[in-house]
Amino acid sequence: MRYYQKEELISARNILKPFIHNTPILKSRLVNELAGCELFFKCENLQKAGAFKMRGAMHKLLNLTKEERVKGVATHSSGNFGSALALSAQILGVSATIIMPSNAPQVKKNAVKSYGSTIIECEPTLEAREFTTAEFIKQTGATACHPYNDPQVILGNSTAAQEVFEEIKPDVIVAPVGGGGLISGTALACEFFSPHTKTYGAEPEGADDAFRSVRDGFIHPSLSPQTIADGLRTSLGEHTFPIIRDKVEEILLINDEEIKIAMRLIWERMKIIVEPSSAITLAAVLKNKKLFAEQKVVLMISGGNVDLAGFFES
Amino acid sequence: MRYYQKEELISARNILKPFIHNTPILKSRLVNELAGCELFFKCENLQKAGAFKMRGAMHKLLNLTKEERVKGVATHSSGNFGSALALSAQILGVSATIIMPSNAPQVKKNAVKSYGSTIIECEPTLEAREFTTAEFIKQTGATACHPYNDPQVILGNSTAAQEVFEEIKPDVIVAPVGGGGLISGTALACEFFSPHTKTYGAEPEGADDAFRSVRDGFIHPSLSPQTIADGLRTSLGEHTFPIIRDKVEEILLINDEEIKIAMRLIWERMKIIVEPSSAITLAAVLKNKKLFAEQKVVLMISGGNVDLAGFFES
Repeated sequence: MRYYQKEELISARNILKPFIHNTPILKSRLVNELAGCELFFKCENLQKAGAFKMRGAMHKLLNLTKEERVKGVATHSSGNFGSALALSAQILGVSATIIMPSNAPQVKKNAVKSYGSTIIECEPTLEAREFTTAEFIKQTGATACHPYNDPQVILGNSTAAQEVFEEIKPDVIVAPVGGGGLISGTALACEFFSPHTKTYGAEPEGADDAFRSVRDGFIHPSLSPQTIADGLRTSLGEHTFPIIRDKVEEILLINDEEIKIAMRLIWERMKIIVEPSSAITLAAVLKNKKLFAEQKVVLMISGGNVDLAGFFES
Repeated sequence: MRYYQKEELISARNILKPFIHNTPILKSRLVNELAGCELFFKCENLQKAGAFKMRGAMHKLLNLTKEERVKGVATHSSGNFGSALALSAQILGVSATIIMPSNAPQVKKNAVKSYGSTIIECEPTLEAREFTTAEFIKQTGATACHPYNDPQVILGNSTAAQEVFEEIKPDVIVAPVGGGGLISGTALACEFFSPHTKTYGAEPEGADDAFRSVRDGFIHPSLSPQTIADGLRTSLGEHTFPIIRDKVEEILLINDEEIKIAMRLIWERMKIIVEPSSAITLAAVLKNKKLFAEQKVVLMISGGNVDLAGFFES
């Protein structure tokens, strides 16, 4: 396991500051009453490109050498990380190539294009995406950017919790668990800046690979995840797993119905658009009221990228 | 016309401070590019009860005498002001009665009930609502609270723009125009705290009574308004009209199609839920790019109360 220094986290916070939003922390009296604790919503859905992924992507790019920057970057994430890398690259004047499956939704392709990145389409299998990315990197010398399994990405992600601690010192932070990039950064930030704050994970029952990995002591790949939380279907990596194993208090499992109820509550009562992958944090609190009773609880609202076509075109 | 003192506005800001959110001001690089100016979204949709109405309602209650507080308050607004008055009354321990048409949506009735107010239902006509309210007040001695045509409400509303000026001094503020409560308060705040800032109104083409009232020099009632911006169908009152006539630069007319496009842009790109009545401010900027080119423009995002049942139950 790689060890992290407090100075690395401080440096990430400082060098990212000019490029990202210090996102608002919202509160709702009514939701507090329902949950039986004091909730603070750290709104990374209001981050640039609509998700916390901007932090890791931008931090990765800022840590490239001059030579690497010239050769550009590539990723095969077509989700929030792909958009975040595209926007970060545009801001820094780095060329970025996003390898996407041919069946990716048009809205995602448009987002990446609007940020000025090149799209390479491939067959809609993980193998094809990895192969196409590897080929592209071999030909161009571009740097491959992994959406979460990279210390620079984890350090970037840690800045969300660092911002929280500049305002409050909660008893608990609840973060969603997909590939583990956000919760790893969050747990590291707790360790260095607010050691009494416990980190809890929230993971879909239908994609419980992180829960099983921590229980069994090795990484279970996420083989056939079934959940509406599309950002949480990925497997842990060797950089995120040990941090979660060692520093996360517990991973709470949540079903899709509970996620939907929490999501609707946030939209209706807090007037913000959050993804299922973010609403799972509130669902975890509502499901485990005794665990969090009367405490100050921060929810990491990781993103707000939801396809709204159905709402606006009906 | 009633004259306002700077001290009254400062007092409103100070006494309201503990009871309301100082709402975030959000920015979007992409929306700025589309608009050709620098936009600041003052997010009153993230205010308590989901709308700026909380400011005027709470300020009204805070200015009641002890005797008046004991007798309670009543209003026949079933929209955002009704909810805001209900919540304000609950917070201050004042009894509130909301007179609602029998055909009001269940979601609105539930909101008011969840804040502990009493609902009296009446026939769904303005006459029935006014008559029922008058009868109730005669019987109980409760204070009638008008949703906008009241100096205490206007002073309360002025605090949104006051908060803006504590952070930035824009060239322009664009506010929606319905009954004129928000734009009146905004124009007063400009006059006293940022005199170089111009106030523009945005009004639906199908409910252009304020536009016609300013043009003709007297209040045209809003007789058969046709617009999706349900918060902007009301008529000006004798307290809001003269402020708008004297202090608002221009009222810009916007059609429903333009409102819908702006609303979708805000939801998709900024991840916040805004009502059509709020999205009209962005629509006004997108329609009048030359007028606002290169300027710092604040948009008053008045509220986020939208019925989401269609999205979550489909």
